[in-house]
Amino acid sequence: MQLTTTRLQAQIQFIVEIDKLKHVLRQTLLMDKSRRENDAEHSWHLAMMAIVLSEYADPQVNLLRVLKMVLIHDLVEIDAGDTFCYDAIAVQDQSDREQKAADRLFGMLPENLEKELRSLWEEFEAKETLDAQFATALDRLQPLLHNYYTQGGTWKMANVTEAQVRKRMAPVSIGSPVLGEFVESLIKDAVRQGFISQSE
Amino acid sequence: MQLTTTRLQAQIQFIVEIDKLKHVLRQTLLMDKSRRENDAEHSWHLAMMAIVLSEYADPQVNLLRVLKMVLIHDLVEIDAGDTFCYDAIAVQDQSDREQKAADRLFGMLPENLEKELRSLWEEFEAKETLDAQFATALDRLQPLLHNYYTQGGTWKMANVTEAQVRKRMAPVSIGSPVLGEFVESLIKDAVRQGFISQSE
Repeated sequence: MQLTTTRLQAQIQFIVEIDKLKHVLRQTLLMDKSRRENDAEHSWHLAMMAIVLSEYADPQVNLLRVLKMVLIHDLVEIDAGDTFCYDAIAVQDQSDREQKAADRLFGMLPENLEKELRSLWEEFEAKETLDAQFATALDRLQPLLHNYYTQGGTWKMANVTEAQVRKRMAPVSIGSPVLGEFVESLIKDAVRQGFISQSE
Repeated sequence: MQLTTTRLQAQIQFIVEIDKLKHVLRQTLLMDKSRRENDAEHSWHLAMMAIVLSEYADPQVNLLRVLKMVLIHDLVEIDAGDTFCYDAIAVQDQSDREQKAADRLFGMLPENLEKELRSLWEEFEAKETLDAQFATALDRLQPLLHNYYTQGGTWKMANVTEAQVRKRMAPVSIGSPVLGEFVESLIKDAVRQGFISQSE
């Protein structure tokens, strides 16, 4: 097949390659508990949350940049796999594995796109800008909703405590005080209902 | 559970409800042919294509609006189901079923968000603005890529002809002449390789 240009060919190859994100399973269960969620579904859900909840972000937050961040934030897991946040050993070499994955995947793109998406991903990882902080808040809130609405989900599976969940959810308040307050009310209720073990 | 406000409660209920999009199966196979794709995965893939291919849209196209459109364009299928584009009977009452679904789903949101998203969805459906035309081009191109890279996919399943595929792909050139040219080259090659039946 003769593609129109080498540039377009590289872009199409990238689009075909990232289909693999649909196979990367997370620990999170879907709301009906029928199966685990994959990274492509998770990324779509975060993008929808960014649209629906953007009013709770700092007014300086740029929704287009946030959407790009959440859409690409897990691409590196195509090579590096999903690292369960409560697995202390896997978390140790997570960054190395993900940097290598970013080299390969974003490296498939023409240079200007590679630079833009790589830099957005690094920004997301660093959690220092307002845009990255709001994106991170959504990335923490989404699995919390799944765990809450599946009566415990991965919290029960990993037997996590209230203190662990609260630590994991701390970035939500940074990205959005209103959503942080909401998360706190959900954690309290989850403990009350026995979805999360009480801390000792 | 006491949610912070009724407004946020409605937004969260909508976010929980649209998890169902992950269960709506399309005819399209994933690139590795292991299973059919669902609407959430498809919507994420279109959003990624919008980011990576935006340079081939008219310079007036607004990427943020296109992203919102492709992210929400299939939400109505939560109630209305996926309608296979080559199924002439199902296509007949598709619009009625989808309008009812839009009433219910977007109706879950606070009024300003309901209006914004409903109107973006109607704009996508009407295919009259530059933004909608580019979004539609991506929505046609994505399954074509899947069919091409799975050596025929749903083309073979439905035994569609070159003329049917060309008709289905006509909106690609409208949304992006460069992508339209690329699609034409892919169709020619797909016919040559026997992935699509030659028209009589």
